[in-house]
Amino acid sequence: MSASIDFYFDFSSPYSYLASEQIEALAARHGRAVRFHPTLLGAVFRVSGQRPLTEIPLKGDYARRDFARSARHAGLPFRMPEVFPVSTVQAARACLALEPTQPTLLAPFIHAVFRAYFVEGLDITSAAVLEQLLERCGADAAAVMAAMAQPDIKERLKQAVDASIARGVFGAPFIIVDGEPFWGSDRLEQVERWLASGPF
Amino acid sequence: MSASIDFYFDFSSPYSYLASEQIEALAARHGRAVRFHPTLLGAVFRVSGQRPLTEIPLKGDYARRDFARSARHAGLPFRMPEVFPVSTVQAARACLALEPTQPTLLAPFIHAVFRAYFVEGLDITSAAVLEQLLERCGADAAAVMAAMAQPDIKERLKQAVDASIARGVFGAPFIIVDGEPFWGSDRLEQVERWLASGPF
Repeated sequence: MSASIDFYFDFSSPYSYLASEQIEALAARHGRAVRFHPTLLGAVFRVSGQRPLTEIPLKGDYARRDFARSARHAGLPFRMPEVFPVSTVQAARACLALEPTQPTLLAPFIHAVFRAYFVEGLDITSAAVLEQLLERCGADAAAVMAAMAQPDIKERLKQAVDASIARGVFGAPFIIVDGEPFWGSDRLEQVERWLASGPF
Repeated sequence: MSASIDFYFDFSSPYSYLASEQIEALAARHGRAVRFHPTLLGAVFRVSGQRPLTEIPLKGDYARRDFARSARHAGLPFRMPEVFPVSTVQAARACLALEPTQPTLLAPFIHAVFRAYFVEGLDITSAAVLEQLLERCGADAAAVMAAMAQPDIKERLKQAVDASIARGVFGAPFIIVDGEPFWGSDRLEQVERWLASGPF
């Protein structure tokens, strides 16, 4: 099997949600696995001097319309969360706490969190909600919640975010295939072409 | 024939160039014509507090790579201009001066300017270059250059830019189909679906 493709995301990014629902099947069609990397757009935007899409004059109204239309175009359920964006620090920490002990549950948990926020309207900043989502995936929720409370988790997330910035991640979703960066759910077609037939 | 679709663009926008090469055939497949509207991203960005893509840390390097890759993906020639972005005021004024007297030459002239900048590497801020491009299209170049020198042209361009902002145009290309806004060359697939089968 060839190298995994890297998928950087923030749980508060609608386009990350849309791409997350498509990336594994796309990669599998070309014999690749996906390595998921939570990052924090808040920290990334501080480096690049950007703001959340929905806070930009004119662009914000369009963005809300485009999130929903792009979801319909992709045939995916989507409901704009009432509170947007939200802090995704706890959800990202849960990923880091889950991965070392139950790595095969990481992708199912990531999908569960995205769907909780963008389909079910759940509050993914809540520890109780995250615990419930871990349980849904069959994870050892109590162990993960305990690992999230350890002092090293904060530093590990900081390192993960710094590592994403060092790789040039300035937005989400951000996909790296054999060193080639692709930004946005609207680049999946180019990602697929690259996987199918190499550099173009 | 159904209503025209509106195509807002800035001559200094690579993604506007890519979309400009595809939009007329796309529209024609669904019995539509295209109405071209030059706007000025500099003025638009002042309203929305944005900056040119290539000036944003991290994003800038990616953008240059994505311009070229997206052109190759679309099968279009592209060469990143040495000076970028440039003022497109004169080129936009030339459009406004040309349109009333030789409306059928507007689209050919727009394509000529885009290709001059993004393929041939010509300086589209230069009056001599614009005059040469008008001649290439078979326009009455001297008459257009004279109309560009009239005092009303400045006000007409200001009104055109204000009108684009009033319609919610915050970037380019920006396409409006029966009231539905689409931003970016990567939304052409959604534009086509909308034209083919209506709202989705």
